Amino acid sequence: MAQKAQPARGMRDVVPPLGELRRQVANRVLDVYARYGFEVIETPALEDIGVLIGSQGGDNEKLVFKVLQRGAKLEEAIAGQGELADLGLRFDLTVPLARFVANHFNELPMPFKVAHVAPVWRAERPQKGRYREFVQCDIDMVGEAGPAAEIELCCATLDALRAVGIPGCSVHLNDRRLLRAAVERHLGAVADPTPVYIALDKLDKIGPAKVAEELSDYGAAGVEALLSWLQTADMTEGPDEVVAGLESTVGALRSAGYPVEFDPALVRGMGYYTGQIFEVAHPDVGYSLAGGGRYDGMTARFGAPPLPMCGFSIGFERICDLVDPALFGAAGRKVAVLCNDQAEQLACLSRAASLRQAEPAATFNVLRRARNARKQHGDLSHLGYTEIIEAVTFLA
Amino acid sequence: MAQKAQPARGMRDVVPPLGELRRQVANRVLDVYARYGFEVIETPALEDIGVLIGSQGGDNEKLVFKVLQRGAKLEEAIAGQGELADLGLRFDLTVPLARFVANHFNELPMPFKVAHVAPVWRAERPQKGRYREFVQCDIDMVGEAGPAAEIELCCATLDALRAVGIPGCSVHLNDRRLLRAAVERHLGAVADPTPVYIALDKLDKIGPAKVAEELSDYGAAGVEALLSWLQTADMTEGPDEVVAGLESTVGALRSAGYPVEFDPALVRGMGYYTGQIFEVAHPDVGYSLAGGGRYDGMTARFGAPPLPMCGFSIGFERICDLVDPALFGAAGRKVAVLCNDQAEQLACLSRAASLRQAEPAATFNVLRRARNARKQHGDLSHLGYTEIIEAVTFLA
Repeated sequence: MAQKAQPARGMRDVVPPLGELRRQVANRVLDVYARYGFEVIETPALEDIGVLIGSQGGDNEKLVFKVLQRGAKLEEAIAGQGELADLGLRFDLTVPLARFVANHFNELPMPFKVAHVAPVWRAERPQKGRYREFVQCDIDMVGEAGPAAEIELCCATLDALRAVGIPGCSVHLNDRRLLRAAVERHLGAVADPTPVYIALDKLDKIGPAKVAEELSDYGAAGVEALLSWLQTADMTEGPDEVVAGLESTVGALRSAGYPVEFDPALVRGMGYYTGQIFEVAHPDVGYSLAGGGRYDGMTARFGAPPLPMCGFSIGFERICDLVDPALFGAAGRKVAVLCNDQAEQLACLSRAASLRQAEPAATFNVLRRARNARKQHGDLSHLGYTEIIEAVTFLA
Repeated sequence: MAQKAQPARGMRDVVPPLGELRRQVANRVLDVYARYGFEVIETPALEDIGVLIGSQGGDNEKLVFKVLQRGAKLEEAIAGQGELADLGLRFDLTVPLARFVANHFNELPMPFKVAHVAPVWRAERPQKGRYREFVQCDIDMVGEAGPAAEIELCCATLDALRAVGIPGCSVHLNDRRLLRAAVERHLGAVADPTPVYIALDKLDKIGPAKVAEELSDYGAAGVEALLSWLQTADMTEGPDEVVAGLESTVGALRSAGYPVEFDPALVRGMGYYTGQIFEVAHPDVGYSLAGGGRYDGMTARFGAPPLPMCGFSIGFERICDLVDPALFGAAGRKVAVLCNDQAEQLACLSRAASLRQAEPAATFNVLRRARNARKQHGDLSHLGYTEIIEAVTFLA
C-alpha cells in the first residue's frame, strides 16, 4: 500500500507562489528590525527537555513534541530505567533565547537587541487555520530595565507591520503586576497566579461563565469581582511604579503617532511575564497579530545573572494571511520559454544564461511544453509570468 | 540546580554577526534560483515516520530523531500496544519533496521547478564542525526526464556559489546505472546494491582496505576488481544510453564554461538515485559543497505516477564557512547612539525614528551606555557599526 501523501496531522505544505511571498514578507520584517539595531540569531529547533519543561510556558509546556532517546538509553528507558524522551521541539522562541543569552553571556554585547525568526511546534488539537508548526518573528531587548525597551519593541513591531502593508494596527497594553495586585485583592494571596492567568486569558474565547467555572476553587464572589474589575479598571489602579511605566509607554507611543490603549483584560497565557505585556490588534481580525512582554530574570534558570528581558513576537502566518501579494512582486521580468524538444531546450538554456547575465533581475525559465497548453499557461500566469514565449522566438 | 545553558548535544546557537550573514547568503542563493524559475516551497519539519523510514535514505534512516506519541496512544505504546513514535524530523529535503509532489500533483505546474531551503536533522555522533541540525538549499526539477534537468541544476548551483563569492567550484559527475553495471560485473547479481553504495561512499574517509572489509561478504577478488575499476574507469564504460546522457551533461556544462569532470568513484550514500549523480568540489576543502542526482519514480511510494525527478542540494553551513563576510555588509550606514540616562534615551528613540524615515537603508541603534566603554565599542565595531556617537551629538 502506498504511504499517504498528506503532511502529518496538523502540519501543512506551502505551495507556490506562497513560498516566495513568505520569504519576501520575512525579509521586509527583518529589514525593519535591522534598521533598529536588532541582530539576527538562531537557536536549534530541539532543546533538552529540561529547558522546555518547567519554563513557566503555561499550557504550551503540555504541547511539547518530545523526541525519543536513541541507542542504549532508549533500551534502558523502555526497561523502565530512565525517561523515554531527552529532547523536545521548542514551543516558543523566548525560552530558547533566555538559554542562548545565558550560554553566550560573556561574548554578547550588553544591552543586546536580538531578532529571532523561526518555526515553533505545539501539539495542539488541529483546527482550521491553525497549524502545529508555525513561524514566530521575535525581537527582544536584553539588559534594558527601563521603559525604552517596551517603547522600542512596540514601535519596531508596528513599523514592521506597516512595512509589509498592514497599517491600522494598535497596541493593547497591560502590566502583569497590576493584574497580580488585582488577583490578590479579589482572590486573596495566591502563591502561583499562573493558573489564574491561563484561565483569564481564555475570556475572549470561552466567555466569563466558563472562566468563572475554571476558577471556582478561588471562590465565586472573588472571581466575579475580579472579572468585573477586568472590564472596567483604568490604568491608574495599580502600584505607583507600575502606573508610571504604563504612562511612559503610552505617552511615548502616542507622541510618535502609534495607536495604543490600556487593556486591563489583556493577560497572555505564559507564566513567565513580570511586567508590561502587550499585543497588536487589527480591526479586520478577532485575534492578535503579535504578543509579548517583559520577562525579567529568566536567564537565572540557566545559571546566568537575572537580566532584564523584554520581547515582542509577530505571528508570521497571521500577517501572511493579511498582506496584499501585489505588494511583493518579483523585481524584474518573468519570462517563460516553452520548448518542443530537447534540442530547442538545450539551445534555450544557453541563451537564457547569457540573458540573465545581461539583465540580472529578470527570470528566464526554460521549460518543456506541457501536453495541456491551457493549464500550463494558467499555471505560469498564477506564478507571475507575464511573458510566455516560444523557443523559436527566444532563439531568433 | 540551574538548567545547563549549552544547546542540546550536537546542536549550536548562531551568534551575531553570523545570523545576518546567513540570512544574506540564503537570499542571494534563492535570488539566483528564482531567476532560473525555481519556485520556493516549504514542507513541515516533522513527517509521519513511515514517510522517512523505508525511503531508501541509506544510513540516514538510522539517524532519524523520532517523536514520541502523545496522549492515549503513548499510554498504549508504553503498555506494548503500538509504536512509541509516530513522527520523525526529516533527514533530507528530497523525501519530503516526493511526498509534497504526490500530495499536490493535480495543482502543481508540470514540469515543476522547486527551491526548498530548510533545516534537516540527523542524530549523528557529534564531531567538530558537524551539527545534528543543518540547512540544505535544494533545487529540484520534477517531470523533466531529459538531460536538461541535470544541466540546469548544475548551472544554477554553480551560479549560486559564484553569487555568494565562491568561484572555482567544479562538478563531479557519475551515473548510478554505470556504477550498478560495474557492481554486477564484479560482484555478480545483487538484488539491492544500496549496502555496496553505502560502503563505497566511504572510500575517501576510511580508505580502500576498510571498504573491502565492509564488503567482504561479496568475495575478496570481486571487491578488489571493483575498487580498482573505480580508480580508473572512463565514462564510456557503460550502457550506450548512460554514456550519451553523461556526454550530454559534460558537453553542455563545458560549452557554458562550467568545469565538470567524470568521477567513477562518486557514489553518494542514498539508495534512491536512479541515474546521474553529482557533487560540487572546491579546491580549498576536502568535502563536497553540494550533492544530488536523479531519483526518478520516488513519487510512486506516495500513490502518484512515477515522475522523473532530479535535484541538487547545497550544504548551507559549508558555503557559509567559505564566504567572505566583507561581501555581505549592511546596505546603509550603521549608527549606534549611546545614552547616559532614560531622558536622553527616550529623546533619541524619537529622533532615530524620524531619521530612519529620511534614510531608510540606515540603522540607528539607540542604546544605554555600558559600564565597560571599551568592550561596548569593540562589540559594536564587531557588529559592523562605523559610527558610534553620543546622545548629545545625536540630539543637537
